[in-house]
Amino acid sequence: MSTVRSSLSDENRETTAKALQGALVDLVDLSLVGKQAHWNVYGKNFRSLHLQLDEIVVSARNATDLVAERAIAIGVSADGRAATVAETSSVPKIHDGQISDTEVVSLFIEAYTAIIANMRERIEVTESADPVTQDLLIGVTAELEKQSWMFQAELA
Amino acid sequence: MSTVRSSLSDENRETTAKALQGALVDLVDLSLVGKQAHWNVYGKNFRSLHLQLDEIVVSARNATDLVAERAIAIGVSADGRAATVAETSSVPKIHDGQISDTEVVSLFIEAYTAIIANMRERIEVTESADPVTQDLLIGVTAELEKQSWMFQAELA
Amino acid sequence: MSTVRSSLSDENRETTAKALQGALVDLVDLSLVGKQAHWNVYGKNFRSLHLQLDEIVVSARNATDLVAERAIAIGVSADGRAATVAETSSVPKIHDGQISDTEVVSLFIEAYTAIIANMRERIEVTESADPVTQDLLIGVTAELEKQSWMFQAELA
Amino acid sequence: MSTVRSSLSDENRETTAKALQGALVDLVDLSLVGKQAHWNVYGKNFRSLHLQLDEIVVSARNATDLVAERAIAIGVSADGRAATVAETSSVPKIHDGQISDTEVVSLFIEAYTAIIANMRERIEVTESADPVTQDLLIGVTAELEKQSWMFQAELA
Amino acid sequence: MSTVRSSLSDENRETTAKALQGALVDLVDLSLVGKQAHWNVYGKNFRSLHLQLDEIVVSARNATDLVAERAIAIGVSADGRAATVAETSSVPKIHDGQISDTEVVSLFIEAYTAIIANMRERIEVTESADPVTQDLLIGVTAELEKQSWMFQAELA
Amino acid sequence: MSTVRSSLSDENRETTAKALQGALVDLVDLSLVGKQAHWNVYGKNFRSLHLQLDEIVVSARNATDLVAERAIAIGVSADGRAATVAETSSVPKIHDGQISDTEVVSLFIEAYTAIIANMRERIEVTESADPVTQDLLIGVTAELEKQSWMFQAELA
Amino acid sequence: MSTVRSSLSDENRETTAKALQGALVDLVDLSLVGKQAHWNVYGKNFRSLHLQLDEIVVSARNATDLVAERAIAIGVSADGRAATVAETSSVPKIHDGQISDTEVVSLFIEAYTAIIANMRERIEVTESADPVTQDLLIGVTAELEKQSWMFQAELA
Amino acid sequence: MSTVRSSLSDENRETTAKALQGALVDLVDLSLVGKQAHWNVYGKNFRSLHLQLDEIVVSARNATDLVAERAIAIGVSADGRAATVAETSSVPKIHDGQISDTEVVSLFIEAYTAIIANMRERIEVTESADPVTQDLLIGVTAELEKQSWMFQAELA
Amino acid sequence: MSTVRSSLSDENRETTAKALQGALVDLVDLSLVGKQAHWNVYGKNFRSLHLQLDEIVVSARNATDLVAERAIAIGVSADGRAATVAETSSVPKIHDGQISDTEVVSLFIEAYTAIIANMRERIEVTESADPVTQDLLIGVTAELEKQSWMFQAELA
Amino acid sequence: MSTVRSSLSDENRETTAKALQGALVDLVDLSLVGKQAHWNVYGKNFRSLHLQLDEIVVSARNATDLVAERAIAIGVSADGRAATVAETSSVPKIHDGQISDTEVVSLFIEAYTAIIANMRERIEVTESADPVTQDLLIGVTAELEKQSWMFQAELA
Amino acid sequence: MSTVRSSLSDENRETTAKALQGALVDLVDLSLVGKQAHWNVYGKNFRSLHLQLDEIVVSARNATDLVAERAIAIGVSADGRAATVAETSSVPKIHDGQISDTEVVSLFIEAYTAIIANMRERIEVTESADPVTQDLLIGVTAELEKQSWMFQAELA
Amino acid sequence: MSTVRSSLSDENRETTAKALQGALVDLVDLSLVGKQAHWNVYGKNFRSLHLQLDEIVVSARNATDLVAERAIAIGVSADGRAATVAETSSVPKIHDGQISDTEVVSLFIEAYTAIIANMRERIEVTESADPVTQDLLIGVTAELEKQSWMFQAELA
Repeated sequence: MSTVRSSLSDENRETTAKALQGALVDLVDLSLVGKQAHWNVYGKNFRSLHLQLDEIVVSARNATDLVAERAIAIGVSADGRAATVAETSSVPKIHDGQISDTEVVSLFIEAYTAIIANMRERIEVTESADPVTQDLLIGVTAELEKQSWMFQAELA
Repeated sequence: MSTVRSSLSDENRETTAKALQGALVDLVDLSLVGKQAHWNVYGKNFRSLHLQLDEIVVSARNATDLVAERAIAIGVSADGRAATVAETSSVPKIHDGQISDTEVVSLFIEAYTAIIANMRERIEVTESADPVTQDLLIGVTAELEKQSWMFQAELA
Repeated sequence: MSTVRSSLSDENRETTAKALQGALVDLVDLSLVGKQAHWNVYGKNFRSLHLQLDEIVVSARNATDLVAERAIAIGVSADGRAATVAETSSVPKIHDGQISDTEVVSLFIEAYTAIIANMRERIEVTESADPVTQDLLIGVTAELEKQSWMFQAELA
Repeated sequence: MSTVRSSLSDENRETTAKALQGALVDLVDLSLVGKQAHWNVYGKNFRSLHLQLDEIVVSARNATDLVAERAIAIGVSADGRAATVAETSSVPKIHDGQISDTEVVSLFIEAYTAIIANMRERIEVTESADPVTQDLLIGVTAELEKQSWMFQAELA
Repeated sequence: MSTVRSSLSDENRETTAKALQGALVDLVDLSLVGKQAHWNVYGKNFRSLHLQLDEIVVSARNATDLVAERAIAIGVSADGRAATVAETSSVPKIHDGQISDTEVVSLFIEAYTAIIANMRERIEVTESADPVTQDLLIGVTAELEKQSWMFQAELA
Repeated sequence: MSTVRSSLSDENRETTAKALQGALVDLVDLSLVGKQAHWNVYGKNFRSLHLQLDEIVVSARNATDLVAERAIAIGVSADGRAATVAETSSVPKIHDGQISDTEVVSLFIEAYTAIIANMRERIEVTESADPVTQDLLIGVTAELEKQSWMFQAELA
Repeated sequence: MSTVRSSLSDENRETTAKALQGALVDLVDLSLVGKQAHWNVYGKNFRSLHLQLDEIVVSARNATDLVAERAIAIGVSADGRAATVAETSSVPKIHDGQISDTEVVSLFIEAYTAIIANMRERIEVTESADPVTQDLLIGVTAELEKQSWMFQAELA
Repeated sequence: MSTVRSSLSDENRETTAKALQGALVDLVDLSLVGKQAHWNVYGKNFRSLHLQLDEIVVSARNATDLVAERAIAIGVSADGRAATVAETSSVPKIHDGQISDTEVVSLFIEAYTAIIANMRERIEVTESADPVTQDLLIGVTAELEKQSWMFQAELA
Repeated sequence: MSTVRSSLSDENRETTAKALQGALVDLVDLSLVGKQAHWNVYGKNFRSLHLQLDEIVVSARNATDLVAERAIAIGVSADGRAATVAETSSVPKIHDGQISDTEVVSLFIEAYTAIIANMRERIEVTESADPVTQDLLIGVTAELEKQSWMFQAELA
Repeated sequence: MSTVRSSLSDENRETTAKALQGALVDLVDLSLVGKQAHWNVYGKNFRSLHLQLDEIVVSARNATDLVAERAIAIGVSADGRAATVAETSSVPKIHDGQISDTEVVSLFIEAYTAIIANMRERIEVTESADPVTQDLLIGVTAELEKQSWMFQAELA
Repeated sequence: MSTVRSSLSDENRETTAKALQGALVDLVDLSLVGKQAHWNVYGKNFRSLHLQLDEIVVSARNATDLVAERAIAIGVSADGRAATVAETSSVPKIHDGQISDTEVVSLFIEAYTAIIANMRERIEVTESADPVTQDLLIGVTAELEKQSWMFQAELA
Repeated sequence: MSTVRSSLSDENRETTAKALQGALVDLVDLSLVGKQAHWNVYGKNFRSLHLQLDEIVVSARNATDLVAERAIAIGVSADGRAATVAETSSVPKIHDGQISDTEVVSLFIEAYTAIIANMRERIEVTESADPVTQDLLIGVTAELEKQSWMFQAELA
């Protein structure tokens, strides 16, 4: 807990902090996995995926800033270090080395399914705890669900 | 090793690949540690450091792209996943929670000293192995050394 | 229904889909009626209305994209074809031929009243069905209510 | 007929008006069908078509403005309402629901063939009736023929 | 009350109007106090605060437009005149003359605490009265809480 | 006649030169009369006309460059001097001193009628003399006819 | 008086300070009254005035910065707080609630007449006291007189 | 004389009006002569002069707006019509047809000498009559003297 | 012949294709000769020509795209390969090595004369064969004739 | 050899000149072959390749300027004429007519392999002859190797 | 004295020239001292001063252009060479080597005091000698006094 | 020597520092001499040289920042003060007063020859001392040699 004054009760702050920290780790990992695939993908759809992955990395990075700074603003710290991400992320692992275009599509559909399910829960628990945080998480989720559709649409 | 044709001999490729992979991990970690401090820093110089840290994150992220795509271009894959970074980075650890402005300055001076020492070695080993990669590493190092000075100048 | 995975229950998805499809048709029609008036308006206030109508068309077109892509993202398709719009829109009809500036103002006040009433209902039904969609509809409605005021303010 | 003074004879004005009204309806419909496909397309080439369709919608919308405002400028009104478009467009119908990438390509090749054939006739009839309008229709047709090629090139 | 048609019941409109008018006065005053400090601040951190204060003035001014135009859009007028602000603002007074950097930081932490507490209440009362207004107030509050953190972080 | 080589026969060049010189004088005068009204207009629609007049001046100035440089390009000189404009322009005179908004509208409708009639003749005579020049005059005329409509639309 | 060194004699500094403080209050009030009218205006010319008022607010806000920072630069503080403005401004009061377009025009003509008369005096007294300040006030007055004309031109 | 209220005495207004009208005519003529030379110049330095002349036309056109709108702002009308310019300009005449680069340089040196001499007088007479106008004329003159130097520097 | 559907008869398509292929080769060559001179020119006018040549290269490159894509759009392929250009271009050869500024001017006047003569024929033959192509060639020719004048104007 | 003074010995200059001339021809040819494929490609990946090819043409054109102007800067001329390119380029020939997407990918992989091998040799020979040129060639090669990877990644 | 014609008497020109040459030397030196400090500063406020110093260098450089070109425009030459600056500048010397943040602030307060005192004298002597030059010097001084305040405000 | 940690040995640091300090002085002087000529040049090519000189000043100024900040980054200070430049620069002196265009060209060819010769030596000595600095000096030299050619090309 930081020394920043918060207008939330201790309980609400704890609930909200947990939701934000969970979202932060998932989003940092999404940005790292996105870059990993951006670099190592190959196959007929290489160029299209290479560009699409870069767009989701930009989007995920912006979301990490929103989420982390919201945590600080309610008086808790944010933890987006590599080890924390490696241990607590809910994003499925990506193997090292080259990765085919079709595998990338499957992987990201799976990843979005996992993250979105968690985000939906975070939206629920923050409704009464902190509607300002909830609104922020709703905005992030809307974007994630749109990106999820775009990968699913690429499955024939 | 990927299926991309390389104009380098196997030995030179291996040497170069190792240098690039080491640089990649350090730079991804620098970007994560930079954001961690960007969010959690406090103290008289909060705003100045908050802005300065964001600039070095942008710079580090750009460098990761240069380094990773160079690896792919010479026929090896790049590994910038959270777990790989957590395990193999040469950047000193940053603790969680709030971090004071003076501690941030010390931490980053230490971090740059470690990364630059490694980059200098990578420049040396790639000189004969692959001058194209060496040139890229020289450019990245010049930028790192400039950022290092800026933190040192903030020590009275 | 498409093959896109949705995190919504079937019932919530159906409720949400109906709200989005209704909003889509109204917004496409608003953009078409807006252009129709943009072209055929005349009178002392021609230039002012000509410009104002173009702004609301841009705004309506952007909203159609948000609404339709939200429908796809939750696993339903979107229908914004001319015939569907002609048959199911809740926007009052505009006659063909030239249309005077004062008639344009009356027509659009009436149009906004109709659309906003429907949007308010859609906000209500999506509250529990899908808060992410609700948030999107709230944003669109805020913009529509602002545009509605601007036409009403032009009545002396 | 509006009260705008025209430098054209009544006969030339009628001929020109008919050509412009026909072009307007086709172009409005092209923009609506383009968006319909932009939203509902799926398949391996989803992303590429999704982007390509957005570009042709922008282009078609710009063309509707040119054509409709030319009609007004020669003293006739323009009719781009949903019902008018639904009834008089020469663009082939698109079914509702999801639509595969290959079907989109076929559909748009067919659509362009129909529109271009009509545009070629409109260019012919306006040559003596109003060379200013003809020049405008030539410019629009050049663009349509270029877009038509791009869909045909995607057929293997 | 203006003549603008509102989709709200009289009671809901009155509740919402009061929340918006309160927010408007606080935000106008925040922008004036912000400029006052922007001009008269001195001390080691002069430049950093001078720039930071200008950013919050820009942000507060944008928020006043959102809030005032929302009031008009629901059929009530907005009052942001100097005398109204001087009498009804909940922002703590700032003394005239030069003001030191440390005093500025304390003053703004106090100011944000006061405004945010009121905004939280306004969010609560508009939840059922008008969710569109609530959404707008949530967005403004998120921004205020972020700015509040930034001043608190500057306390060592 | 200048020393620039022309691909036109002497007769065609003379015909084309006369059309271009006539267009040049009319367009320079339109830009001067436009500014005169831009400055001296008053009345309820002052601001709207003040802005509209500035747009037609920009448009007329661009057209003078196209027309004059086309003249030079076919080997004749261009004459846009004040005295030449004062003596040979076909634009109706504007009186000095203040001018009411309604008078401005009437004056410009009259002015456009005169210029467009001459432009139509110039399009005709250059058809066989020089299609490149004709194409340029068609483009200028299309723009003039659009501007003419905008003034006529302002008549109730 | 601040601790900033001034190159002016005490007497000249006092004269200049008084002129600047007077200008500051009038310009802050002009920006607040401008926004008040921007929000609450209605009538046939709503849109035109709504836009025009926003432009004068931007201009007035820029001028307040010039004037206040000039005061600081000569070693005096600047006072632009709501209460100071409410008590010492020479701008005529604007009533609350909706305000018709014609009333807005009258009100602003009256306001500009009052402000400009004061500015003219300030220009006179600063001529020998501080030519640098005088030059700044002349520039601000030129802009005010231009805006004043624009409102007067809207009177038929 | 217009109906715009002026803060100037009748005598001062007349003096100022005459200075502004003289400046306006000279500047409109400079812009026309500049374009005339821009189009018809030839010789080794064609391209350099062609570009330089376009820059002075842009500058002169901007100055005409400043000067004319200042006239209106003090309650007099502005006269920049072709005939008025042809008859009352103090800019030396330029002959029609092609004009060599060296002749252009001589002509513009002569033109600037004439205009600047008149501007210097106008600065003098407006000093007491209206310092706001004087400041504007000083700014215009500074620009003219800079342009004058640039032509003189081109004489070897 | 490609598989792109064309609305032209076989004969018209062949005529049009030949005109476009001829134009393509000339324009590619113009861009190569332009760069050759851009690099190797020397003399008093070096800088002016160096910049002018770069502008015509940009213009020529844009024109090659228009022309080649028009060919594809009517169902024929485009051939802009080095060998094809070297063998079939109608642009006069440029020698290797340094080239003086005066020689550059002469060379480009000659080059434009040759290309324009061919373009004029291509405009003629496409008039009935394909007015859309003719319109495109007219636009390209207008630009070429303007550039031609600019070189001729540089001859004293 | 030009008359530009060079700081290189005659032997080093000759070595460097040969490397630069070789690079120039390859890069001009790459830009021409790139455009040829940009226009004539067809197949499922048409749009993706059409865009990718345009990017490499832009990149190749920029590189030709760097290389050619470096040649001039060391006192030798540059030869990028069509015939020189056709005869001395090391880029494999591309056939005329339509070309399938898969054929394009193969062709460009082959082309990059050839060019890069030559560039690597040029880097070697210029190391002692002229490090400034070597640095430039290293930069160009880095870009070529990245583009080469992107085509190889498109092979499944 | 140059050969540029001046509208000033010899005496006035001499007076004005001396004022401008003095201002030029001070401003060039300010830009050099500013950069010297920008590079060598260290201390807690390093980053803030590093950025602030860069802004005053940009501002000083722009002012040198205004001042020098004004000198040329009145027919005298300008001397901003290193030796002239080293010998005649009124800016206090800065020592070599690192310089602490507090020392920088003191140094620049001293420097501005010296330059502004001289500028005030130059404003006085040019009032009758050349009001156009005076106006320019007033503008430069206003900027210098604002920068001076900013350094003084940083003293606690 | 500053307190910045350097990864270089003392000897290498000294060698590198000397090279950087020498380059800094030459580049600062080049920027001052460039401005001196920019202001005082005259002759037929005035405008072309006036613009060209401004471009090299911008380029030289950017290079001074690169070089000076590199010095600081390796732990030495940078000295770019007027007196240091006046005493140690290797750029040939420029006389005061007006300077003809041909003299400017000669002077700058001489200046570039001197600077480039020194830069070549600096590149050599830093090769083993510090490859990062060498790379930076190579980039600066490439730009200087290009600018040098441009002046030489202007000699007939």
